[in-house]
Amino acid sequence: MQRIDWATLDSSAQQQALARPALPDAAALAPQVREIIAKVQSEGDAALRAYSASFDKLDNNPLQLSLEAQQRLLSQLSPERKAAIELAYDNIRKFHAAQLPRDIEVETSAGVICELKNQPIQSVGLYIPGGSAPLPSTVLMLGVPAQLAACPRAVLVTPPGKPAATDIAPEIIYAANLCGITEIYTIGGAQAIAALAYGTETIAKVDKIYGPGNRYVTEAKQQVSQDPRGAMIDMPAGPSEVLVLADALANPAFIAADLLSQAEHGPDSQVILVSDSQSLIDQVELQLSAQLAALPRKEIAAKALAHSRAILTPDQATAVAVTNAYAPEHLIVQTANAEALTAQFTSAASIFVGQWTPESAGDYASGTNHVLPTYGYSRTVSSLSLTDFFRRYTVQRLSATGMRNIGPAIVTLAEAESLEAHANAVRLRLAALESAAQDKN
Amino acid sequence: MQRIDWATLDSSAQQQALARPALPDAAALAPQVREIIAKVQSEGDAALRAYSASFDKLDNNPLQLSLEAQQRLLSQLSPERKAAIELAYDNIRKFHAAQLPRDIEVETSAGVICELKNQPIQSVGLYIPGGSAPLPSTVLMLGVPAQLAACPRAVLVTPPGKPAATDIAPEIIYAANLCGITEIYTIGGAQAIAALAYGTETIAKVDKIYGPGNRYVTEAKQQVSQDPRGAMIDMPAGPSEVLVLADALANPAFIAADLLSQAEHGPDSQVILVSDSQSLIDQVELQLSAQLAALPRKEIAAKALAHSRAILTPDQATAVAVTNAYAPEHLIVQTANAEALTAQFTSAASIFVGQWTPESAGDYASGTNHVLPTYGYSRTVSSLSLTDFFRRYTVQRLSATGMRNIGPAIVTLAEAESLEAHANAVRLRLAALESAAQDKN
Repeated sequence: MQRIDWATLDSSAQQQALARPALPDAAALAPQVREIIAKVQSEGDAALRAYSASFDKLDNNPLQLSLEAQQRLLSQLSPERKAAIELAYDNIRKFHAAQLPRDIEVETSAGVICELKNQPIQSVGLYIPGGSAPLPSTVLMLGVPAQLAACPRAVLVTPPGKPAATDIAPEIIYAANLCGITEIYTIGGAQAIAALAYGTETIAKVDKIYGPGNRYVTEAKQQVSQDPRGAMIDMPAGPSEVLVLADALANPAFIAADLLSQAEHGPDSQVILVSDSQSLIDQVELQLSAQLAALPRKEIAAKALAHSRAILTPDQATAVAVTNAYAPEHLIVQTANAEALTAQFTSAASIFVGQWTPESAGDYASGTNHVLPTYGYSRTVSSLSLTDFFRRYTVQRLSATGMRNIGPAIVTLAEAESLEAHANAVRLRLAALESAAQDKN
Repeated sequence: MQRIDWATLDSSAQQQALARPALPDAAALAPQVREIIAKVQSEGDAALRAYSASFDKLDNNPLQLSLEAQQRLLSQLSPERKAAIELAYDNIRKFHAAQLPRDIEVETSAGVICELKNQPIQSVGLYIPGGSAPLPSTVLMLGVPAQLAACPRAVLVTPPGKPAATDIAPEIIYAANLCGITEIYTIGGAQAIAALAYGTETIAKVDKIYGPGNRYVTEAKQQVSQDPRGAMIDMPAGPSEVLVLADALANPAFIAADLLSQAEHGPDSQVILVSDSQSLIDQVELQLSAQLAALPRKEIAAKALAHSRAILTPDQATAVAVTNAYAPEHLIVQTANAEALTAQFTSAASIFVGQWTPESAGDYASGTNHVLPTYGYSRTVSSLSLTDFFRRYTVQRLSATGMRNIGPAIVTLAEAESLEAHANAVRLRLAALESAAQDKN
């Protein structure tokens, strides 16, 4: 880790110390991804099979994973893993069930009723990365809210397995089935996003796409979300990151383990330690070396650590200010006063309080969602929540009384905005009410 | 209006009948907007003044509207307009206050506490279009939720007035002040969006930008939202649109007035009438001609009507299906059974129920928000709501008991995903708890 003594930096160097590594240039990738999307749009399933042959070396990807194939995979799963997935499912379900949005009805003026209503997104597509490790936890993070929202259709796509396309990790199938998802496709990459956004013969189009992926997937999500005929997406993506704020009394072994669990995600992961204790930083560095050596993914983690930082601050208040300026995706607070500090954080996407709360807890099984805004986006973008699987719309109804009560103000405002037809739509109605009233008299 | 007999069309012609007009090619605009943004980033206030000189023919735009200038403008405002703005403010406030998000705390397993918390966006920028007509109503639609959310900073930008930059419509200032906004800048266009997203000497950067604008503004919002150092935006934009669903008993004069109040927004507005009654369609056409002739903005409205459609359906169920397929921004339901029909709509952004509920009501004063997803985006994007001025984040805390309860499942799941460091962060803690327990015995 790069050591930084915060107090010795001027403000521009401080800004630099909190800068994220530049993202790989999406512009370089964009034309290739655009070509893939165009080919899936024009050739459908044939394009998907062709990409599977060239990218995945699979001659005959069936694209859809049959229910029989799903049953066969499930029979391979150990009871221990099933139980662990069920525990995570239950906790994620409990936390997200508490987020069910409520409809609202307000009579704003007499006879003027306004409603805000929630409706599940009709068709959602969940992207689950494959590659180096299967991610059943991500299936739960996307599938549980889709199930609770009662989205009429939820489908899952994940890269084909090896040696056969159908060799998907049984954990993914088990988690999907728990969430009521059986429509599963063995495709990945930009071509999977294109298939979800535009549809093919086999895969019907979805309205919104969720889930993390590599930079081809990210660029494809970006592109289809810019096209009104494409699909909406969950949130902008960036490399995962953690900031640990610790004091002199924190456990250096725990902190090193937490930093490494972020670092092993990928070489572009960012890991930051902020402390007002030089001695704590020293001890964490020692622990990092010792623990790193024993990790199977030590090369990935070492690369991530190489561009990571240990920031020494003159006091805890500065450590909090540094944290808020960075706006971390994950914030782990390991200080004696962790609970009291929590209210001071203004920009973290997910906060882990105290020594018994590692990031792994939220990654898997505490109940919170692990799909989080990163790269500083947490200042404005929310943690994935149940509400992201709904759309909110309004309904209003005016009675004749309501029209009489607010109609004259509407006419005045429309005139102020020189929108005469807007005024007219109300004047006509007020005149009709007036003449009806006179008929009565 | 173009007449369409739905039953005579094949499915591809039906799809074509509901297609929106192609948007002007953003790609053509993109380089010019990119140049404006880059110039504001590098030259700050000087760039803003230079654009004001070339675009607005204003030699010395002060950029910020002083409190004195605001007071002077307010003194020009009639009591009648003040009262109308206040009525609208009160209703919008009542409806949005009912939307205050609640924080959630759930103990998912014993000793595992998860929270979902809401925090106002720290700094928001509200764009209010100028040009042909000032839009105080949009100030309220953006300013009221910013005030209710208690965003620590809310600023307003609007194109400079004429002949002096400070000649802003008093209605805009009055509405802004009601919402507690006094930081007001007299700049518009792509340069205003750039100033909000990146900051200049005079204008501090904001976190999120809200509000409608012309295609330069829209393209600039799109560009700054793609840059992690830029700013988030409220929603994708498109031309405004209304669909009126009416039966044989509906009032043709009301319907024509509603269609025209959408058509006068701009030549790209889209206006659709769907009915199972040929006679109603005929009567609305007659009313349209009569009412159009009397409108000051009749040329704009006539252009919009030229690409608008009257769709005859064989029955009401088909009319509902057509409406759902189109996914209108505004849906006005003028049928005898309007109330009962409302539950059948699956994609409209805002629904206006019954003959006394013109679109003007929601545009100005009923209380609902008039910033709505258009161009089919309402299938997945929500009506602007109070929640769009908050970010949601999670907090979790495990006690030693909590770690004991879910730790083993986390280890199992991390192993299943081959993320050994994730497992390790938990194993270390379980071991520490184990050894502490043995010390006690």
